Amino acid sequence: MQSRALLPLPRRLAVALLHHPVVDADGTVVTASLTNLDLHDLSRITRTYGLVRCYLVSPLEPQLVLARTLLDHWLTGFGRTRNPDRAEALATVTICPDLRTAADDFRARCGLEVLLVATTAKAHPGAVSCRTLRRELEAEAQAALLLFGTWDGLAPQVLAAADRVLEPITGNTPYNHLSVRSAVAIVVDRLTGSA
Amino acid sequence: MQSRALLPLPRRLAVALLHHPVVDADGTVVTASLTNLDLHDLSRITRTYGLVRCYLVSPLEPQLVLARTLLDHWLTGFGRTRNPDRAEALATVTICPDLRTAADDFRARCGLEVLLVATTAKAHPGAVSCRTLRRELEAEAQAALLLFGTWDGLAPQVLAAADRVLEPITGNTPYNHLSVRSAVAIVVDRLTGSA
Repeated sequence: MQSRALLPLPRRLAVALLHHPVVDADGTVVTASLTNLDLHDLSRITRTYGLVRCYLVSPLEPQLVLARTLLDHWLTGFGRTRNPDRAEALATVTICPDLRTAADDFRARCGLEVLLVATTAKAHPGAVSCRTLRRELEAEAQAALLLFGTWDGLAPQVLAAADRVLEPITGNTPYNHLSVRSAVAIVVDRLTGSA
Repeated sequence: MQSRALLPLPRRLAVALLHHPVVDADGTVVTASLTNLDLHDLSRITRTYGLVRCYLVSPLEPQLVLARTLLDHWLTGFGRTRNPDRAEALATVTICPDLRTAADDFRARCGLEVLLVATTAKAHPGAVSCRTLRRELEAEAQAALLLFGTWDGLAPQVLAAADRVLEPITGNTPYNHLSVRSAVAIVVDRLTGSA
């Protein structure tokens, strides 16, 4: 009865929002700047769905300082008093300089092998559906770090190094330019939600 | 074979983001101000999933003027040239002073009876799941206008006047404070997506 020993899936999932290495519209590898609402929306998804952490990844020290300032506003003092629900969400955020640091932290927290699961808005050879990944994770004692890229998405080297790549979220049209905030909401709901 | 005559479900769905009447944290009915990213995220969802329109509803004339200015930046001139994908998304937005105007416009566009479907983050008597609503809409030649409220959500009179109320999106925890941007993404995906 291996499944009885498994931690519930949300307790084996975390989200990482990468600001580098990502690509711009021309495919050039760039470093994106922080978007305040990403922190709010992604941490609220993380907390609502009971995921382990929401990692905010940027190699730029001033951006990490800015992120810390934004978090501190809500986690301490007036922000916390004014909106304790928001504090509870933002308390799930861990700021990291790179993906390796995020993965190490997550591995230490859940004590399991961590699959790196990349997302992309473009077709990718060998990509799997959310349904397939959900089944795999429900059957195996593994954790998964869901990687999302800002700007025009994760750089090719992140996709190449990932253990799994998720199929793009397509709606009912060839157009698939969702915001990263929408993509995180949909992927987390498809992996752990019950409609 | 009634089902063969039905328009595909996305072509019978639209989203309306209401800035009034909504409630604040104390339950007081208020008018919220516009959030720029809501326009972007919701129109990108509307376009990706092939829905009919994204209605932006506010009774405040200066807010409608501001919305028009934001839209015009992306729909004409430099914004359009710089990011035609964004123009394609924002072209789905219709600005309205009230819900009735939005519903009338939607009814005229799809030529069908329009169900008003309200959303809420709180338990509501008689609320239906996305799965149930999807089945109902797939079987009947009806359109549905999905109503979302900014701030702390739609005011009680909107819920009372709606034809259907959707169950709150719950993740795997009692915490359910998603942003309206996340809620729209998840509801539209649950109603029309294929995981």
